[in-house]
Amino acid sequence: MNPVDPSTKVKVAIIGASGYSGEELVKLLLLHPHVQLTVLTSRQYDGRSLGEIFPRFASLPGACDLRFEAPDTPSILQRAEVAFLALPHGVAAEFAEPLVAGGCQVIDLSADFRIRDPKVYREFYGSEHPAPQLLSQAVYGLPEWRREAIRSAQLIASPGCYPTSILLPTLPLIRDGLIQPATLVANSLSGVSGAGRKADIPFLFVECNESVRPYGVTFHRHLSEIEQEISLAAQTPTVIQFTPHLIPVNRGILTTMSVAPSKQAEGPTGIDQIEACLRQAYEGEPFVRLLGPEALPDTKHVVGTNHIEIAWRMDPRTGRLMLMSAEDNLLKGAGGQAIQSMNILRGLPETAGLLL
Amino acid sequence: MNPVDPSTKVKVAIIGASGYSGEELVKLLLLHPHVQLTVLTSRQYDGRSLGEIFPRFASLPGACDLRFEAPDTPSILQRAEVAFLALPHGVAAEFAEPLVAGGCQVIDLSADFRIRDPKVYREFYGSEHPAPQLLSQAVYGLPEWRREAIRSAQLIASPGCYPTSILLPTLPLIRDGLIQPATLVANSLSGVSGAGRKADIPFLFVECNESVRPYGVTFHRHLSEIEQEISLAAQTPTVIQFTPHLIPVNRGILTTMSVAPSKQAEGPTGIDQIEACLRQAYEGEPFVRLLGPEALPDTKHVVGTNHIEIAWRMDPRTGRLMLMSAEDNLLKGAGGQAIQSMNILRGLPETAGLLL
Amino acid sequence: MNPVDPSTKVKVAIIGASGYSGEELVKLLLLHPHVQLTVLTSRQYDGRSLGEIFPRFASLPGACDLRFEAPDTPSILQRAEVAFLALPHGVAAEFAEPLVAGGCQVIDLSADFRIRDPKVYREFYGSEHPAPQLLSQAVYGLPEWRREAIRSAQLIASPGCYPTSILLPTLPLIRDGLIQPATLVANSLSGVSGAGRKADIPFLFVECNESVRPYGVTFHRHLSEIEQEISLAAQTPTVIQFTPHLIPVNRGILTTMSVAPSKQAEGPTGIDQIEACLRQAYEGEPFVRLLGPEALPDTKHVVGTNHIEIAWRMDPRTGRLMLMSAEDNLLKGAGGQAIQSMNILRGLPETAGLLL
Amino acid sequence: MNPVDPSTKVKVAIIGASGYSGEELVKLLLLHPHVQLTVLTSRQYDGRSLGEIFPRFASLPGACDLRFEAPDTPSILQRAEVAFLALPHGVAAEFAEPLVAGGCQVIDLSADFRIRDPKVYREFYGSEHPAPQLLSQAVYGLPEWRREAIRSAQLIASPGCYPTSILLPTLPLIRDGLIQPATLVANSLSGVSGAGRKADIPFLFVECNESVRPYGVTFHRHLSEIEQEISLAAQTPTVIQFTPHLIPVNRGILTTMSVAPSKQAEGPTGIDQIEACLRQAYEGEPFVRLLGPEALPDTKHVVGTNHIEIAWRMDPRTGRLMLMSAEDNLLKGAGGQAIQSMNILRGLPETAGLLL
Repeated sequence: MNPVDPSTKVKVAIIGASGYSGEELVKLLLLHPHVQLTVLTSRQYDGRSLGEIFPRFASLPGACDLRFEAPDTPSILQRAEVAFLALPHGVAAEFAEPLVAGGCQVIDLSADFRIRDPKVYREFYGSEHPAPQLLSQAVYGLPEWRREAIRSAQLIASPGCYPTSILLPTLPLIRDGLIQPATLVANSLSGVSGAGRKADIPFLFVECNESVRPYGVTFHRHLSEIEQEISLAAQTPTVIQFTPHLIPVNRGILTTMSVAPSKQAEGPTGIDQIEACLRQAYEGEPFVRLLGPEALPDTKHVVGTNHIEIAWRMDPRTGRLMLMSAEDNLLKGAGGQAIQSMNILRGLPETAGLLL
Repeated sequence: MNPVDPSTKVKVAIIGASGYSGEELVKLLLLHPHVQLTVLTSRQYDGRSLGEIFPRFASLPGACDLRFEAPDTPSILQRAEVAFLALPHGVAAEFAEPLVAGGCQVIDLSADFRIRDPKVYREFYGSEHPAPQLLSQAVYGLPEWRREAIRSAQLIASPGCYPTSILLPTLPLIRDGLIQPATLVANSLSGVSGAGRKADIPFLFVECNESVRPYGVTFHRHLSEIEQEISLAAQTPTVIQFTPHLIPVNRGILTTMSVAPSKQAEGPTGIDQIEACLRQAYEGEPFVRLLGPEALPDTKHVVGTNHIEIAWRMDPRTGRLMLMSAEDNLLKGAGGQAIQSMNILRGLPETAGLLL
Repeated sequence: MNPVDPSTKVKVAIIGASGYSGEELVKLLLLHPHVQLTVLTSRQYDGRSLGEIFPRFASLPGACDLRFEAPDTPSILQRAEVAFLALPHGVAAEFAEPLVAGGCQVIDLSADFRIRDPKVYREFYGSEHPAPQLLSQAVYGLPEWRREAIRSAQLIASPGCYPTSILLPTLPLIRDGLIQPATLVANSLSGVSGAGRKADIPFLFVECNESVRPYGVTFHRHLSEIEQEISLAAQTPTVIQFTPHLIPVNRGILTTMSVAPSKQAEGPTGIDQIEACLRQAYEGEPFVRLLGPEALPDTKHVVGTNHIEIAWRMDPRTGRLMLMSAEDNLLKGAGGQAIQSMNILRGLPETAGLLL
Repeated sequence: MNPVDPSTKVKVAIIGASGYSGEELVKLLLLHPHVQLTVLTSRQYDGRSLGEIFPRFASLPGACDLRFEAPDTPSILQRAEVAFLALPHGVAAEFAEPLVAGGCQVIDLSADFRIRDPKVYREFYGSEHPAPQLLSQAVYGLPEWRREAIRSAQLIASPGCYPTSILLPTLPLIRDGLIQPATLVANSLSGVSGAGRKADIPFLFVECNESVRPYGVTFHRHLSEIEQEISLAAQTPTVIQFTPHLIPVNRGILTTMSVAPSKQAEGPTGIDQIEACLRQAYEGEPFVRLLGPEALPDTKHVVGTNHIEIAWRMDPRTGRLMLMSAEDNLLKGAGGQAIQSMNILRGLPETAGLLL
């Protein structure tokens, strides 16, 4: 809550501000003490005022003069130092290229720069990568794991919602050799905002309410980045079992994982090693809440915040480890995490604008 | 829709008719063409009319004269040939004993007679079994697997909601040696009616709505019957990984399972063996809907019916088999399945009163 | 539950079976003991099996051979005696004309034949009436008020969901001069299925969940039929205040009305006159549940049934009468009521197929 | 976002911090830049840490050392300058008395000090007023209408959720003689958090989900304060028609009102007078959002904020005026409005801590 000299505020653009992630970014950035939101693009809403489209933000500071505009790179480069891309994959890369070339720092919420290998991108996204020459400089923006790289990045690929919920609980344990990642079975339950604001019958209220369903069984695009990051931590190519489900809530992802401990972590003291590893990995992390032995995650404890809750249990009967996490798919799983990266990148307090 | 001579109708009692399962039984049995509902017990509602407590049933045929009464065994024995027990475990066994002794056929929806070994009962339910001498004659009433035994039973233990959703997809595959049951990881998502109609803070609307959470992690009472039945089919003691979750719907259970195929079912033709096994096991079964390669289960397709939907996919990347099911926890997972057993027991058409 | 000779079953067509009302009709008519569903039309699903589109109906009796087909009048006339039209207004009339001309009995769930005066139709529906010559023979199919006319109708206009919820509580009181209809203020709260199965952003899960909103304020199309029927009962042209709202439930309409009693019904005995009038009007009616002095309507008591709940209270402070009703918008407010009319029309028991 | 000298922060206590309103106050006051939360009382949670009970607040600034304690007036007086009472009516007054006597500024969220006349209190709350001697100094804390009185108050009665939603749209119009308040018919739809965090069967998830119901018909306690304030503005005793409903959302109140315009506001220019009156009354008000001719209120636009949305329409057919409002029952309807009053009382910016 230190005073902020307006002239030092970071000028920020949101490219593609009409979806659920874009809307969340608008709110967070309007409330961010160190940010001045200068550009909001949306072809659909070109020319309309912010308050007309999102009445709930109309009275936030800095909102009254904001209008949506069609995206125009030269104009964005003149008015923004940082651009958040809240666009579909494929489209995002097209915007990223000239913005990066023009010196803008780009934080992309799409999948376009998350995958290091363009062949994997093609396999999972079904088309050639639109800007492969940028892949080497992109940083996978999971702040708890790439803080240093983020600090000096010009292009940040903000992780997907499911990957964040899976990677944060598992990466420390994989790195320390405490679990066998190839035995991982992950089930994720996501709120409907994850499907975006698009007019599709399966996402109508009546089709989702009083319904639960798996989807993308045996193949979901997010597997590409999950397995990339797990393989890096395991130092060996690794595939995992991941099944997403749609549940009738607006926001929130709950992930439940079962995994075999490594030899080292078997036996009665295994759970202590697991706990010690997680506590050491996330000590002092402002947005990771490690639950003690009595609590289990619940999306209602994280929705509306940038926090992830993580819990762990050793099953004495099967000898397997259970890992569970809860996050807000639009915050820690999207816009909140992206702003956390921006704070690091710009040398701001990491929690600025994110204590909700 | 054949005509039913009223004098041939089965006289039925519901013991403990005030909870969600009991309420569902009331509705189903009032609409059942071969049943006359003669006794409804509830200490809480003693003396009150059915229509007063459940206005929606007030105009069903046979409802107008029904009143709740305090349970009295001699009176029940005089008026009912079949008694459904919709009572908490422990209490159910106390009622079952004199009813069985008096010649009544008993279909118990509690867990009291599901576990063959009283030591396992004590381990999972925390007290001595209240009527161990009855265990040997109780039949675990999963109609698709125990039809013959049900036909001549006097005491039927109707399976739990989670067990039904896990056992129906897996038992044929275990019996035929196509999967390795000890590698089974099952995640179940249940509607809130599974918690019963009791005034507890965690089940308030505001606590459940916009919330998803696992519970009973590494230990849930239903594990005892799941593992009993899986071990019988596998012909070897087997433990599995099972994690239930609470989701904000009234009714429905969605179960997603990952399991390693056996050697025999590995490789490119494994999925065909899986499919053939399931199709053979459930051919002609009126309440099992095997989904083809394009559909996945959705609770909204089974809620309000006695059906279970089952789907399967082989994951070409992990080599593991995914099994998924959807059922209505109060119907195929409770009262519907219990009535299916009654139909078998009484020589009625198995679908009588259950085509909803 | 009398036996039904298959050769005597009524052959029925559903024209436009892909929306929520159509889907409900499919279910009800498949389960109807006196009906054989012979034709299902849907341009969108032409050629696909019923089980493919609505898996939950796949195992109902008579469902296995049913396929959607593109509508073809001569073929429908050959195969069906009664046709239900579940089509948008305007389109329905185009189908009704040749079907009526061909001798088929038509029950139209759209608004096309509800309004007697084509000028009123144009005012509320924005276009010329497509078949004004049929208006004089159409019967407004509110069974409790037009039973005799329905018996001999060839064209039945089944009432709208909001009108049913407003007319049933008020018509007897207006007819008997106990209330002043011009003082009526009606607020209705409807589930989202009322908006139909169409891909519109405002009806996405995320837009409706955790949201409540009025719509159509001061002008809703259903006002035309509400006021037509109220004016007929009052024997004078009458306008009322009606405000619909969208609430996050799948099904159900709750209507709350405030109205001034007439001189005759003022004072301490007014409420007794109100009660006597309602009890007399609906005595023996199978689908009207008059609540006593202690209960209030709740949509959960009527959803899934063809019942309407009605309650009344005199406010001793304002001197006004409160009338409240609850119904399932897809049953008593649409398909259920339409089938109730068919039962009357065909001389079947009025509750046949409707005791759910 | 000006810097705040910690030594100047207002020391604040929350008495009764375990319910939904109390929980909301905790969050808001922890995030409030000018407040130091020093005391949290709850008998139920005595001795437990804030993070244990409300994990989502554990990492907010100032939260780590907070513990619930049993309420002890001398200790509260030593540590707090302002006390918020989030207690049941009757209990609140008992706490208010010694706190006021000890010099603490008290903001009471219960009904205890909202009613000026102890006879009315007894009529509506069923018992003698517990501290009638304090009534004369209590200020009804509707900031838009009592800003001056709030500034110098020692005891503020923060308005109820329903009254706020009804009074803000109507008071300016009554004061200016543009409507006839005795013709007011108000229907309010409230989320379930309004019922509080108490273990009652009717508020279980399964009882509320897929349900809508009126309650308290012809008599609700909030009528006492609604009519008191309306009568003051109308300068004549006035009763109104008010019907609350419970709908399946966590938070939010939507109120729809119909009222006859006064002679002065009848005719074609009436609506312009209405609009001018509302615009003048609320010009510059930070938390009142007057919607233009194209928008209608929606609770999803205000939930999580301290705003109220207000819309108006003249019905050309009935000649009556429709007024609609939407607010968050826990914010503008409870804790948010209470903090707005505190900001005024302490000379802080009125929006401090309330721009969410």
